[in-house]
Amino acid sequence: MTSVCDIELNNLSLKNKAIELTQHLVRFPSITPDDAGSFDYVCQYLKRLGFTCQEVTQHGVRNLIATQTFGQGKTFAFAGHLDVVPAGPIELWTSPPFAGNIISERLYGRGVADMKGGIACFIAAVEGLLSQCNKGKIMLLITCDEEGEAEHGTSCIMDKLNALGTAHLPDYCLVGEPSSKVRLGDTVKIGRRGSLSGHIRVFGQQGHVAYPHNCQNAAHGAIVLSQRLLALEWDTGSITMPGTSLQITQLNSGEFVDNIVPGTTDICFNIRYSSLHSEHSLKQLIKKALLSDDIRYEIEWQRPCAPYFNKANQFVNTLNAAIENTVGIKPILTTDGGTSDGRFIASRHTEVIEFGLRNDNIHQVNESASLADIGDLAMIYQQVLAAFCVDER
Amino acid sequence: MTSVCDIELNNLSLKNKAIELTQHLVRFPSITPDDAGSFDYVCQYLKRLGFTCQEVTQHGVRNLIATQTFGQGKTFAFAGHLDVVPAGPIELWTSPPFAGNIISERLYGRGVADMKGGIACFIAAVEGLLSQCNKGKIMLLITCDEEGEAEHGTSCIMDKLNALGTAHLPDYCLVGEPSSKVRLGDTVKIGRRGSLSGHIRVFGQQGHVAYPHNCQNAAHGAIVLSQRLLALEWDTGSITMPGTSLQITQLNSGEFVDNIVPGTTDICFNIRYSSLHSEHSLKQLIKKALLSDDIRYEIEWQRPCAPYFNKANQFVNTLNAAIENTVGIKPILTTDGGTSDGRFIASRHTEVIEFGLRNDNIHQVNESASLADIGDLAMIYQQVLAAFCVDER
Repeated sequence: MTSVCDIELNNLSLKNKAIELTQHLVRFPSITPDDAGSFDYVCQYLKRLGFTCQEVTQHGVRNLIATQTFGQGKTFAFAGHLDVVPAGPIELWTSPPFAGNIISERLYGRGVADMKGGIACFIAAVEGLLSQCNKGKIMLLITCDEEGEAEHGTSCIMDKLNALGTAHLPDYCLVGEPSSKVRLGDTVKIGRRGSLSGHIRVFGQQGHVAYPHNCQNAAHGAIVLSQRLLALEWDTGSITMPGTSLQITQLNSGEFVDNIVPGTTDICFNIRYSSLHSEHSLKQLIKKALLSDDIRYEIEWQRPCAPYFNKANQFVNTLNAAIENTVGIKPILTTDGGTSDGRFIASRHTEVIEFGLRNDNIHQVNESASLADIGDLAMIYQQVLAAFCVDER
Repeated sequence: MTSVCDIELNNLSLKNKAIELTQHLVRFPSITPDDAGSFDYVCQYLKRLGFTCQEVTQHGVRNLIATQTFGQGKTFAFAGHLDVVPAGPIELWTSPPFAGNIISERLYGRGVADMKGGIACFIAAVEGLLSQCNKGKIMLLITCDEEGEAEHGTSCIMDKLNALGTAHLPDYCLVGEPSSKVRLGDTVKIGRRGSLSGHIRVFGQQGHVAYPHNCQNAAHGAIVLSQRLLALEWDTGSITMPGTSLQITQLNSGEFVDNIVPGTTDICFNIRYSSLHSEHSLKQLIKKALLSDDIRYEIEWQRPCAPYFNKANQFVNTLNAAIENTVGIKPILTTDGGTSDGRFIASRHTEVIEFGLRNDNIHQVNESASLADIGDLAMIYQQVLAAFCVDER
């Protein structure tokens, strides 16, 4: 039987391990897609813990599939990225962005929250629980290409696993992205909206403004097509999934001459869509809305990201219980925000949820996390892990 | 009494003089605002003919007021510009753009038609008629800044004349711009539409496309304002004055990022307007149309050019008669096309009309005019001049 004192000592050790590991990782300036040494560090660390590490490299981007089997049972995966966004203006940082300094009980550095802290917490949680794991399989899916186009990152890992066969796919995957908002534990993401971008080029006939009957003003055509896009009505969403939204992200009629009617005009737009739509249905909808006899245009579709959505199920309940047990609050389940690598992992074989540190200062100068949050996150991760890998018979 | 033979000899001499002078002028590569020597050449030539030459220089641009008084009577002015637009791709020219070569009865060169040919024809006409002039005053108003912003050209000449007093303003002014379209003499311009440009900057709130409720999309605001501009109804014009037209000349939402809602968007537009409108009335109309509680914007007005219009009167009739007498056709009276320096000269003291060579190849490679047209234009100019300056009592 474990005493309260033992638990407290273990928790302190877990917290310190998670903080120390976060500091180590932050000190590698791993700006996308350069892992800057962090990849080898994680590999060596996991190998020491008994993991089998397989590297999947594409276009120079290093991705890791680390696995350790404990017995029969489900495969529980943790997914994360070692790459970070650039530090921004160094002079605005209180502490150097890659120093990993602790100031007033907060750990500062680019990537502390997004999301080296998450990776460190999970590894520390695994390390502390390892001696008790007796069922299932733990898998870590780590990429160095998440903050960029994510073309050679998690999607490559999943291609590899799919090629090996569906038996190699995880049953559950916890993505360690910083999901918390005001307090650690207040928000769990159970899906993400999809995203689809379009680039419309409207063609007209350039000419002198004084002779409009000899021209066809492409900017005027673009305004008509834009109106049609903005007139589309979208679903307003639900508690767990925000509605669909179309935003025009660019209008550009090219080089400006005061007395020339533009011959082409570009419209770029982006749609964030709920699970009521699909990439295919949206393309049909937009094409129908734009349909025009008198305006010539071409449309190119860009950066499609499928939505994913998990109903609140056993996996979510397990995480919720760990959160409530550790920090005493019940998380809100959402699907808001941008896209994440979760979209590559979610499938009918794999349930995906996202939970991690607070995201209030990610991508900003002085990115940081409180030491208490880091310790609590490691404890939450460890409890979830125990639910899947420890059979207490 | 003058014999038919004498007239034919005189006409041949006039034609040859006009061609020779055009060649001389074309050989100065006087791209705006550099007169490249053409200004001194014209000054010297006119001084030899007995003109008093006054130079008006502003910001390095040379402008000429040349006058010669023959007796009591009206002041007849000829206005023109020595500057030309750049030659464009030299390799596409059949003959070098500043060589002034004659090939198959056509004179080639940048500025032959727009409008060194017009200046040459007028000077040749004056030279041939000089011995007979016995009333009124002839004035030449020559600038080297018409093809650019025209800030330091004819407007400076008019400022100078106005400063001297209205008695110094011409009663009639013939602008030698190439007005003819398919045949020399087919078109006389008796006015021009006005022009007014506007630059609207729409302000929003930049932000992430995934959180549209935290942003205000400036591109969406710009589309609404553009719609309002395009919904305005304008007069359709008359036989002599085309209607009013508003053309959007630019849409620009700035630097493009696929997941960012634009924070500002620019709309530029240009209005060509009939004499039913004024700069003031248009500004009021546009401001009223744009009026919006929910879209923040600023508008800056640019490059206002007032319209001018002369009813078909004695001056026009005199020119028409000279055209019909020389080339056997009745010109159409129009006010179409862009703006011209006529807008600076026209006032309640001065009637302005525009007539010159064909404009079918101006601003293009291989700009040229037929030798026959040059000869005919000189004859037309000379007949008009005779009507104002020769009393045959």
